[in-house]
Formats: sequence, C-alpha cells, structure tokens
Amino acid sequence: MSPALFIDALQAELQRTKYGQSPPELYDPIEYIMSLGGKRMRPLLTLMAAYLFTDDWKKAVRPALAVEVFHNFTLMHDDIMDQAPLRRGQPTVHEKWNHNIAILSGDVMLVKAHELLLDVDADKLKPVMARFSRTAAEVCEGQQMDMNFETRWDVTEAEYIGMIRLKTSVLLGYALELGGLIGGGDEATNAHLYEGGVNIGIGFQLKDDLLDVYGDPAKFGKQVGGDIIANKKTFLLIEALEQATGSLKDELTDWLTRTEFDKAEKVQAVTTIYDQLGIRQITEGRINGYFAQGFANFDQINADSARKDFLLQFTRQLIERES
Amino acid sequence: MSPALFIDALQAELQRTKYGQSPPELYDPIEYIMSLGGKRMRPLLTLMAAYLFTDDWKKAVRPALAVEVFHNFTLMHDDIMDQAPLRRGQPTVHEKWNHNIAILSGDVMLVKAHELLLDVDADKLKPVMARFSRTAAEVCEGQQMDMNFETRWDVTEAEYIGMIRLKTSVLLGYALELGGLIGGGDEATNAHLYEGGVNIGIGFQLKDDLLDVYGDPAKFGKQVGGDIIANKKTFLLIEALEQATGSLKDELTDWLTRTEFDKAEKVQAVTTIYDQLGIRQITEGRINGYFAQGFANFDQINADSARKDFLLQFTRQLIERES
Repeated sequence: MSPALFIDALQAELQRTKYGQSPPELYDPIEYIMSLGGKRMRPLLTLMAAYLFTDDWKKAVRPALAVEVFHNFTLMHDDIMDQAPLRRGQPTVHEKWNHNIAILSGDVMLVKAHELLLDVDADKLKPVMARFSRTAAEVCEGQQMDMNFETRWDVTEAEYIGMIRLKTSVLLGYALELGGLIGGGDEATNAHLYEGGVNIGIGFQLKDDLLDVYGDPAKFGKQVGGDIIANKKTFLLIEALEQATGSLKDELTDWLTRTEFDKAEKVQAVTTIYDQLGIRQITEGRINGYFAQGFANFDQINADSARKDFLLQFTRQLIERES
Repeated sequence: MSPALFIDALQAELQRTKYGQSPPELYDPIEYIMSLGGKRMRPLLTLMAAYLFTDDWKKAVRPALAVEVFHNFTLMHDDIMDQAPLRRGQPTVHEKWNHNIAILSGDVMLVKAHELLLDVDADKLKPVMARFSRTAAEVCEGQQMDMNFETRWDVTEAEYIGMIRLKTSVLLGYALELGGLIGGGDEATNAHLYEGGVNIGIGFQLKDDLLDVYGDPAKFGKQVGGDIIANKKTFLLIEALEQATGSLKDELTDWLTRTEFDKAEKVQAVTTIYDQLGIRQITEGRINGYFAQGFANFDQINADSARKDFLLQFTRQLIERES
C-alpha cells in the first residue's frame, strides 16, 4: 500500500465530480475553488482511517470528498468575512466574481457536501450525517469566535485554543472518525481517531501561527511576519500579551496601535519582543504537547499494526511541514 | 382532525427547539428570524401530507421544522443579497447585526435544517436527505437566476416561470413529498404530492406578483405597487414587455428608465399600461392554470378520501389568500 494510491483515487474523484451546470455563476466558482489545490489532507486522512479496517477503502472516496468540499465552502465564506483578496495566490471568489455569488456558491457547496456524504452504507448513514452536522455547526461557532476575538485584547490562551479547536481541528477529527465509521472501526476506536485528529489539528494550527513568525522564508511560501503586520490574534500574540509586563508590554502595545509603520521594522521589533518573552519556546512546547496527545490517542486504536503505522507515518509527515 | 392540531404541534416544536447557545452572535439571529412568524405553510403541508397515510403524523414534526428552518435560511441570505432593510416589518439580520453574522448564522441554519431532517425512520433517511439536497441546490439555482435577471430586459415568460419554479416552488413540492415519504405514501403518490406542490407554488408566486398591483390595499399588508416602483421583474412586467408594441412599449420603457418620478404617478401609469395590455387577465389565466394542474396532481394521490379532502381544503385556503 502506498499513499499515492489514495491520492490518485481522490484526484480521480475530484476530476469526475460535477457539482452542477446551470446557472454557471453558481457552479463555476465551486470548480474554481476546488481547482486551487491544497494538501487535501482531510480527505486523505479519511481514506487512511478507512483503510485501517477494510481493503475496500475506495467506498470512502466520495464521503472523503465531502469533507474537502465542506472545507472549501468554509474558505469561500471566510474569505468574504475576512475581505481576503487572495486564496492560494489566486483571487478569492468574491473578488473574481462578487459577494453575492460567493455567498450563494458557498451555500450550494454546503448542500453538496451533505449530498456527497449520503454515499455510505445504509447502516452508517445516520451516525455519519449526525456527526457531520455537529462538526459543521462547531466550525461555524469557531469562525464566529474568531471574528469576536478581532475586537478584543484580553483573549486568553484557553479561549484561543477553544476557538481553533472548533474552527479548524474538529474537522480533522471528523475526517478521521468518518473513515473509521465507513471502514468499520469499533466505537471506542472511532472516538480515539476523532480525539487524535482534534489534538493533531490544534498542534497543526499552532504550528501555522509559529511558522508565520519563525518559518524559513525559503520554504514558508507566504510572507514571513504577515500575521504580525496585520495584528492577527495568533497564539504567539495572545501569549505575548499575557506574558509581557512593564516596558515590553508598552512597546508591544505601541506596535499594535501604530497606524503607520515600516512593515519589516514592525516584524523585526515584535519578533524581538517574542524572543525576549520566550514565546517561541512556549509555543513549541504547546505544539509538541498536542502532537504527543494526538499520537497517544492513535495508540489506543484497535487495528492492524502495519496499517496503523501507515497512518502514523502520514501524520508525522503532515506535522513536520514547514509551509 | 383539525388544522389547529397541526399548528399547535408545530408551534410547540418551534418553542422547544434550541439551535445552539454560544457564541450568541451566531445563534441569536436564528431565534430572531424564526420568531418573526410567517404562515408556516411549508411545515403544515408536510404534516398534512404525512397525515394522509398515518395517524402517527407527529413523527413528521421535526422534519417539517427542518423545511421551515431551511426556508428561513434562504430568507436570511437572500436579504443580504437583495440589501433588504426589512423582513416581515422588522429589521433584517444583516441590518440588526451585520453582514458577516448574517452569512454565518445562515450557514448554521442550513446545517441545522439537515440535522433536523435526520429525525426520520432509518429506512427513510436516504431518500429524505437525497431529495432535500436536490431541492436545496435548486433553490440556490433559482436565486442565482433571479439575480441574473435583474440586469436583463429580455427575460421570457418561460425563463421567469423556470426561475420561480426553482426559487420558491420546488420547496413546496418537497415539503409535501417529505410528508408522503415519512407517512408512507407509495412512490407514485409521493411524486404526485411533489408535482402538485410545485404547481401550486408557481401559481402562488404568480398570485404574489398579481396582488402587488391588483391587491386590495386594505387586505394586502404591503404597499400596493411596490414592485412597480422598484422595477421588479415580476410576471406582470415581463409579460407587459413581451406584449407591448408601439407607443405603449415606449411609454413603459420610459417609466422603467426614469430615475426621478412621483411614486403614485408611476404606479398608476404602469398599472394603466398593464390594463391596456390585459396583463391582469393573462396573469389570472396562468395562475388558475397552475392551480388547476396542482389539484389535478393531488387527484392522483392514493389515500383515504376524507384525509385528502383535508389537504385540499387547506390548499384552497392558501391559494385564496389576498395578502
């Protein structure tokens, strides 16, 4: 078994799937955003989780695609709310078309995600759909919390972790649980898959925050320091706001409130404050903690050990990313 | 059996149902829009259709509510797209909160609609969900077509009927079909319920267009002529644009292109043009045709005749509305 088999099956399904034809203003944006690429890690995790329990993992391909479609729906709507001009280096849907089209195409994507999920064995349909509904609502809750945090300067670490858990991590958990449900994992195992996915997901998002500041510019792909320039409330900034006192606190607050500044200068100054507060080490500690917890969850999975190793290896590659 | 029983059961479920708690910015708008009222005709049709085949119609109450939640989701998002300030005389969600909240609350409503639908017997789940997915996508297609029509002056009657079929009528069809599926109607009967609902729905929307111009101001509830003032592309206007020639065409075009005008004068002038073209009679003819077709579909329903009469009577009340 090779990961390439999963990737190929998923790509073939992506190619084959038509979301609709008419009116084109509604469906072209779906084709567009789905064609922008991405790591496809959620559907790949679904396939690997299904493979833990069955050779017939291909029956998980369409439901796996549902998770990817849902993820891209959230990107399309989040980009409107964040007024983001670019997504994966290309114009966002609301920029390339308009706001109304981005709202409505996203709505149809959410419908289509549910529809793709229907393609599971009859006895699995109820839990697959019920867990998806729960997860989808939680992702929206996380997005609302993220928006609420924008105007607050007293967000705690615990609140931030709670937000990213909902906004990004429960979907990774669901992707794995879905594979377990379809493949035939026992109830406890599917719960471990879910919790493992959530913990890996939290670590993954914290690493995203970390790389924005401490990533290798040659590998990162985005502008290092982008979050600092935009005053984005990342784990690093929240931690720094919690830790800083005295003149460091004043200096940090000063940079956060300046309306005119040299971007490189701000990135360097805030990074220096982070360095002085040991934010990098604190963040790396949290990341490693969540990753370790995730692997501990996976350890509890009741499945063939060679197949488990396959999932563990893929997950390790994911978390070692530098972009 | 009395319609009040259905209404009471539905109201009780509306009261009992909690969509979520936190964050309040996400869930308060759902409580708000659901509390604004409305005729609740879609869920009532679901209950009446279920009652055609079973005394245990109460098992259709939560799925019926799903249809009402979905309908209100479309109102919340349509109001953003149409920049509507009011809904049922109250501020729209994007006005009372903001655009982002209206997008995201609507997204959760769409998720919750799917979730409420899960509460059906296991053997009905797949068709209930699959038909809902199809219908929900079609409603979005209709909304996109409606937006596309805004900038076109050559919309044909057939295109307009196709648009309202998708935007408003298929959901009435689905509401009835859903009751049939849950209650245990045979396949042909459920198809007749669906088609009947679609035809009644088209007639209903055309009557909406008609009442805006020819409704009794004392009964209509809204400002008579509102569509004329806004150049809204209704059946009447599309028909008038198709029928008018010579000086009448010039006069109509003149009123449509004026940027400054006395509202009452415009309403009266355009209504006079409609009168001269016989638009009222043409529209009434179409309305009666769709209603007749809908009742012909209902005639094919294989169910106890007393229970059928009950549905027919309710439908007759619906279509005789004057507001």
